[in-house]
Amino acid sequence: MKRVVVIGGDAAGMSAAAQASRGVEPVELVVFEKGDYTSYAACGLPYVVGGEVPDADRLVARSPEQHRANGIDVHTAHEVTAIDLDGCTVTVRSLVDGTTLRQPFDDLVIATGASPIRPPFANIDAGGIADLHAIPDALAIDAAIRDRSPRRAVVVGGGYIGLEMVEALLRRGIAVTLVEKLAQPMATLDADMGARVADGLVRLGVELRLGVGVEGFVPGADGWVQAVATDGGEVPADLVILGLGVRPNIRLAAEAGIAIGPSGAIATDARMETSVPGIWAAGDCAESLHRVSGRPAWVALGTHANKQGRVVGLNVSGTDARFPGVIGTAVTKVADIEIGRTGLSEREAAASDLDAVAEVIEGTSRAHYYPGGSPMAVKVVAERGSGRMLGAQIVGGAESAKRIDALAVAVWNEMTVDEFSQLDLGYAPPFSPVWDTPLIAARRAGERAAR
Amino acid sequence: MKRVVVIGGDAAGMSAAAQASRGVEPVELVVFEKGDYTSYAACGLPYVVGGEVPDADRLVARSPEQHRANGIDVHTAHEVTAIDLDGCTVTVRSLVDGTTLRQPFDDLVIATGASPIRPPFANIDAGGIADLHAIPDALAIDAAIRDRSPRRAVVVGGGYIGLEMVEALLRRGIAVTLVEKLAQPMATLDADMGARVADGLVRLGVELRLGVGVEGFVPGADGWVQAVATDGGEVPADLVILGLGVRPNIRLAAEAGIAIGPSGAIATDARMETSVPGIWAAGDCAESLHRVSGRPAWVALGTHANKQGRVVGLNVSGTDARFPGVIGTAVTKVADIEIGRTGLSEREAAASDLDAVAEVIEGTSRAHYYPGGSPMAVKVVAERGSGRMLGAQIVGGAESAKRIDALAVAVWNEMTVDEFSQLDLGYAPPFSPVWDTPLIAARRAGERAAR
Repeated sequence: MKRVVVIGGDAAGMSAAAQASRGVEPVELVVFEKGDYTSYAACGLPYVVGGEVPDADRLVARSPEQHRANGIDVHTAHEVTAIDLDGCTVTVRSLVDGTTLRQPFDDLVIATGASPIRPPFANIDAGGIADLHAIPDALAIDAAIRDRSPRRAVVVGGGYIGLEMVEALLRRGIAVTLVEKLAQPMATLDADMGARVADGLVRLGVELRLGVGVEGFVPGADGWVQAVATDGGEVPADLVILGLGVRPNIRLAAEAGIAIGPSGAIATDARMETSVPGIWAAGDCAESLHRVSGRPAWVALGTHANKQGRVVGLNVSGTDARFPGVIGTAVTKVADIEIGRTGLSEREAAASDLDAVAEVIEGTSRAHYYPGGSPMAVKVVAERGSGRMLGAQIVGGAESAKRIDALAVAVWNEMTVDEFSQLDLGYAPPFSPVWDTPLIAARRAGERAAR
Repeated sequence: MKRVVVIGGDAAGMSAAAQASRGVEPVELVVFEKGDYTSYAACGLPYVVGGEVPDADRLVARSPEQHRANGIDVHTAHEVTAIDLDGCTVTVRSLVDGTTLRQPFDDLVIATGASPIRPPFANIDAGGIADLHAIPDALAIDAAIRDRSPRRAVVVGGGYIGLEMVEALLRRGIAVTLVEKLAQPMATLDADMGARVADGLVRLGVELRLGVGVEGFVPGADGWVQAVATDGGEVPADLVILGLGVRPNIRLAAEAGIAIGPSGAIATDARMETSVPGIWAAGDCAESLHRVSGRPAWVALGTHANKQGRVVGLNVSGTDARFPGVIGTAVTKVADIEIGRTGLSEREAAASDLDAVAEVIEGTSRAHYYPGGSPMAVKVVAERGSGRMLGAQIVGGAESAKRIDALAVAVWNEMTVDEFSQLDLGYAPPFSPVWDTPLIAARRAGERAAR
């Protein structure tokens, strides 16, 4: 029986293992996970801090025991330290007793995930400075809030995790300053849409320090952070959350000679096979095709991890499967601000050598006469001439972000913005205006693309 | 200058006129509307009765005066009684003074809408028995509720208007019995999904009389309705709402010799031109192409009326435009029950000679650990063998119905259910599970389609 070793027991690795355990060809499945948890929803971590999720264990979709009951040989607290491609073995160290052993494999699944970026800021190891990447991080932040009742927090970085942590800290009654090196939060949005997010944050009472670079941290006598040192002066803080993004964990693969792609993640083909036959990669460590730019891209998201893991699981167990790629869809919220994006921004289109036009339209989530609607702004990006929809961005109130899905399906199918504007979408007064804002934005983008 | 006469001043007719008034070729625009309102949102009428919309005038997007200010010669209370194709005139009767005149046209836009079906039930003209089709209907029902404080209402017909009126009456504190001739409410859903709507209605306290045919009405001594006579016995009622659907208003067109299509509505081509050059039709009186069945279809919805009107307005004013057809998307809600559908149901697929398979999956609107999620059931219908997505249906709680849009864009683009299940849609815990229910339903439908 083929022996499949999986490195990493979270979304991608365990999806691969679970799928392979039900495959048409029986395989032996061995998983090494360096942490204590398997199959947990990292995307839920901010809500553990915010209190929406009262118990971090609820994030665990399947425990190691549950996986074992399904015939998957899961070893937590076991770190793979090397891959030997010639010998078809991995070196595994037990984090419990320090012992090391070699494990043979026929197929190998690399699902090593990503790690938070921690620049060499001065005193970054002071107390009260936290990443949020795994369950212990969330528990540590929660404990710090309980123990020390911080009054002022600084969130460094205005991306998804940063903004979600802004919400979590506000919910805990802590005043929040957001320090972001760029001139806008949410760098995956264009500047005009990022400005709308910034306006919303200010409305929520967040102090924004945009275009401000962090230089280090100022600890107090007890070693706990007191302030963030920036190129714009010191910002007082009893608690600092680092939301500086993540990097793919590629060291093991790179050291073994497996190709790393132009995005910096492990290169894969459509079957999620790496440059070495029988070696697969999935999840936050893996590269995939961006269907709009046609270029390799690295997008670390739980949905892709699950889907890629499933594709790998099928491929190692006798069913041919493909991962069709990504288009950069993402949604998030900060209190009542919803954000969605898909495809390429204007900035990304330019970087992909595409000649793009764009249009932003403001509207509401419901018919103007129906109560309870929220404002929203929808930006549609189209290719000049062809009118192909390249991407879209939404910033608005309740009921706005998931409208990105219809736009995402359109981007996926390379629809023109004109055709999109004619689509038969669901309409009733409690759900949208008769001309929903994405349709109008697409129509106007089409007029601009045709000029 | 070309003289364009428009028959009907609601969504389709006024969209046509408004668009033509901004056209590349100047045209003279004359509109005859037999009622007193223009450009009002008929879809909002149930919410006038329910009280969400406190003033029916809020449904008016543009008054006759506003249209006149844009150069459109609007005549309300004027009914067109005949079309003379040879003489290129219409006969118009003033409903104010009874005078009749002939009006010449170069192009004619027929936007006569649809009318409620009123079967020849005994005593259908008794007091307290109302349709809901135009603003005066909503005002009359509201007045009846205020004046007579009905305790028990019967809604006849479990379609969109019927269900929306169930919600409205419940909001007004009136006990509601729904009488429906078919065995399920919402005949545009398959029986299994209709049953979920029925369960929800029962949960709301609605008394359901399914498979029960109305035979007439029983008026009291004052001429006001007291009961509904059905083939299942009398149902007491102080108020009766008829939600028996609508029929396209085709008499004028048919009498003039303009072709009526197989759906019973006015036949049109992709430019919304009728069988007679220069005579156009748009909105609830017009037929259009159903893109999934490939057959002519009649779907009376405000979104189509607006889009078709716009297409006609462009075509009569110098810009070539096409209406690409419909796929039968619709959403509605009854209190906390949301309903969405697109494409073909299993029943419709069979009627279109398509070999279909389907799968129903239950899920939630948010990640399982994130609070406030709602249950939903998603049904995906696929063509056996090819796996082409033919349609989808959703019944669930808050945040579920608009998920139909992503499925609608997929149906529109003839995606396979397998490809749909791999789509890059927006995911974050407050918005969906990591595998959103439509993706799982599509994947399972794909497995079934491949068998």
